[in-house]
Amino acid sequence: MNAEILTIGDELLIGQTVDTNSAWIGKNLAQYGIQVSRKTAISDSEAEIISAVNEAFQRVDFLMITGGLGPTKDDITKKTLAKLYQCGFRRDETVTAHLENIFARRGRQLLEINKQQADVPEICEVLANEVGTAPGMWFDQNGKVLVSMPGVPNEMMHIMENRVFQRIKNRFKTPEILHYTAVTIGVPESLLSKQLETFELSLPPHIKLAYLPALNTVKLRLSGQSDNAQILESEMKGFFEKMCETCGESVFTKEDISPVKYIARLLIRHNIKITLAESCTGGYIANQLVTEPGISKVFNGSIISYANEIKHNELGVPEDVFRTEGAVSETCARYMCEAALKKFGADIAVSTTGIAGPGGATAEKPVGLVYVGIATKNGSHVKKYHLFGTREQFMQRTANCVMALLKDLLKTEFNTL
Amino acid sequence: MNAEILTIGDELLIGQTVDTNSAWIGKNLAQYGIQVSRKTAISDSEAEIISAVNEAFQRVDFLMITGGLGPTKDDITKKTLAKLYQCGFRRDETVTAHLENIFARRGRQLLEINKQQADVPEICEVLANEVGTAPGMWFDQNGKVLVSMPGVPNEMMHIMENRVFQRIKNRFKTPEILHYTAVTIGVPESLLSKQLETFELSLPPHIKLAYLPALNTVKLRLSGQSDNAQILESEMKGFFEKMCETCGESVFTKEDISPVKYIARLLIRHNIKITLAESCTGGYIANQLVTEPGISKVFNGSIISYANEIKHNELGVPEDVFRTEGAVSETCARYMCEAALKKFGADIAVSTTGIAGPGGATAEKPVGLVYVGIATKNGSHVKKYHLFGTREQFMQRTANCVMALLKDLLKTEFNTL
Repeated sequence: MNAEILTIGDELLIGQTVDTNSAWIGKNLAQYGIQVSRKTAISDSEAEIISAVNEAFQRVDFLMITGGLGPTKDDITKKTLAKLYQCGFRRDETVTAHLENIFARRGRQLLEINKQQADVPEICEVLANEVGTAPGMWFDQNGKVLVSMPGVPNEMMHIMENRVFQRIKNRFKTPEILHYTAVTIGVPESLLSKQLETFELSLPPHIKLAYLPALNTVKLRLSGQSDNAQILESEMKGFFEKMCETCGESVFTKEDISPVKYIARLLIRHNIKITLAESCTGGYIANQLVTEPGISKVFNGSIISYANEIKHNELGVPEDVFRTEGAVSETCARYMCEAALKKFGADIAVSTTGIAGPGGATAEKPVGLVYVGIATKNGSHVKKYHLFGTREQFMQRTANCVMALLKDLLKTEFNTL
Repeated sequence: MNAEILTIGDELLIGQTVDTNSAWIGKNLAQYGIQVSRKTAISDSEAEIISAVNEAFQRVDFLMITGGLGPTKDDITKKTLAKLYQCGFRRDETVTAHLENIFARRGRQLLEINKQQADVPEICEVLANEVGTAPGMWFDQNGKVLVSMPGVPNEMMHIMENRVFQRIKNRFKTPEILHYTAVTIGVPESLLSKQLETFELSLPPHIKLAYLPALNTVKLRLSGQSDNAQILESEMKGFFEKMCETCGESVFTKEDISPVKYIARLLIRHNIKITLAESCTGGYIANQLVTEPGISKVFNGSIISYANEIKHNELGVPEDVFRTEGAVSETCARYMCEAALKKFGADIAVSTTGIAGPGGATAEKPVGLVYVGIATKNGSHVKKYHLFGTREQFMQRTANCVMALLKDLLKTEFNTL
């Protein structure tokens, strides 16, 4: 079954806010066999909302709306929906009680503007929002379902997870849709596509392959659709294995997760302690690891040694190295990871030193040059890369290279794979 | 003038990729007096593309398309546009030369699949893409302009900046649109709206106020539209100053930039050195600072002291503190920032210690509790916060709190504001 998403808010159109909601909704609806066939973003305008809803309902029977439910004047979704469904408002008692509770807890006065958040169109079913003040709403009229939710991401997710998914299951009968995704690092899309040419031609019409490049990774996604879940699953598994075999060593993971998350979970599972001495990545890799719950089991801490002074004082890189080879060098990367290993008592230490740009480059050392060092009790080695992009992209690409090195290391030296 | 954005790609609908392109386009078109009135995301389907383009051209005269220009089979935008405009293809010589050059430089073989990237619909004007392989295309037929660009963000931005903006200026005559934005930290949207009630009612119809909450910040954006740039600017400036006065101390900055960027630039401008000892934020704040070019002038490095062991070994937090008050305590935060100040030779040191969740909480110390310490040569102080959200949101909220504290400090102790 197809559904559409409608996001409401000028901030999405003038680019002040990046819409992460609809990606999340799309991903999660897929698990329930619902395919998002179109996403539309419009401004906080009554005429726009009404025409966009009407257009969507000409194409699909299920529409998810986010945004425009705040307490302020620029938020008009609720009023517009009442107009669209030609109904009045009622003040919901449960929502009122929830608002009184939430404001009391925060020690804030409940203003009339806040109380109005409990006013909902008469014909809708309220989707309680325990983590915020604006309730979600479920409209089911003339065979068409419309769900309206706040645009604040954690509130939307809360309502989807706790109120909407179960209602979808009860309300719709949907075909099975399965996605299998493998992540590759460091191989260009066109090369992968060349490798997979024959495989791609062998796919039946109900299974599609997509290439999703992002920085120096490419996700290979197989999507299949069928009425028979069991047959589809076994079919998809077969094709997925064949695809991964064809790509060989290029496949980093067969799960749809980021390389950092994959490595973080592996380290936690096998209780392998990691630390870092980051220069050009400035804490990016550490912070990516730390977003994984439970990482404290294997991550005690790390150092960001941005200036030579810190590389010398904290990691014992000899000042000679800066004068002869420079801080962006194999030798410096090696000193850094070896010292970090001892300093933080880890099983693996990673160091990064490079030129993130836009400044700092020389003829021999261009922007994008980076050395990655890895040390364990068995010794250390350093690898050199030429990467590109903005400062952020450079850090992200470096992190992906580090994860590919760590995967090799976990396989060869730690036998975890 | 209004324009629409059409993004093409299944990955956007099933949520595998978050669309950051259209936010960037929206933001930048606004500078040229063009307002994005709708954004639509559809799948890589010929029928969908054709109907979405036709629908858009019923509403506007200018349509920007991203995505579907890769070399692989799932990318069909170019073929579909040729069909839509009922024209054949020509192989562009400049693009071919560029492809040969790029593949030679990367030491890769130019496959036929790559050469085909130089094939463009006959009637379009090529928008050279120096940073990638797929060229952009400019169609101008029957008074309607369509621009097609790759979905890879840095390629799209390169084409927009170097090829599209100047063409827009030449092609369209547009009214002036101005946005003025102030950023507040720590005040809820509804409270701000109450404060600004009278101000909002005093606005003329061509100037609108929007509230854009994100984590513990709210952006207040005034948008105005007029044919006379000069009059609009002076009008907007007056209203913006009045708005900021009304909000008083809640206003963190009157620029549309992130709090971290604002502080980073201030530190660089005044040559004030900063360091950090991060526990619960795990390098997030350091990394945010490091994304600012030129930060090396004022940031030598910092430590991520995640485990108690590191807080003790590297920062000298007495083991007593862990036993009596715990690592998440005012005393620990104070030790951490004071030690970091000395260790890294900075003017300001910030420490964070808290409970990011989901694990690690107790009855007295719930998830979201965080102590922020700030030390300078004049002494140190610690502030306690109760924040909420996921691990990432908790770190981001903490960073915003830190920036608010730093702004106060830069004002009172360093006289920079």
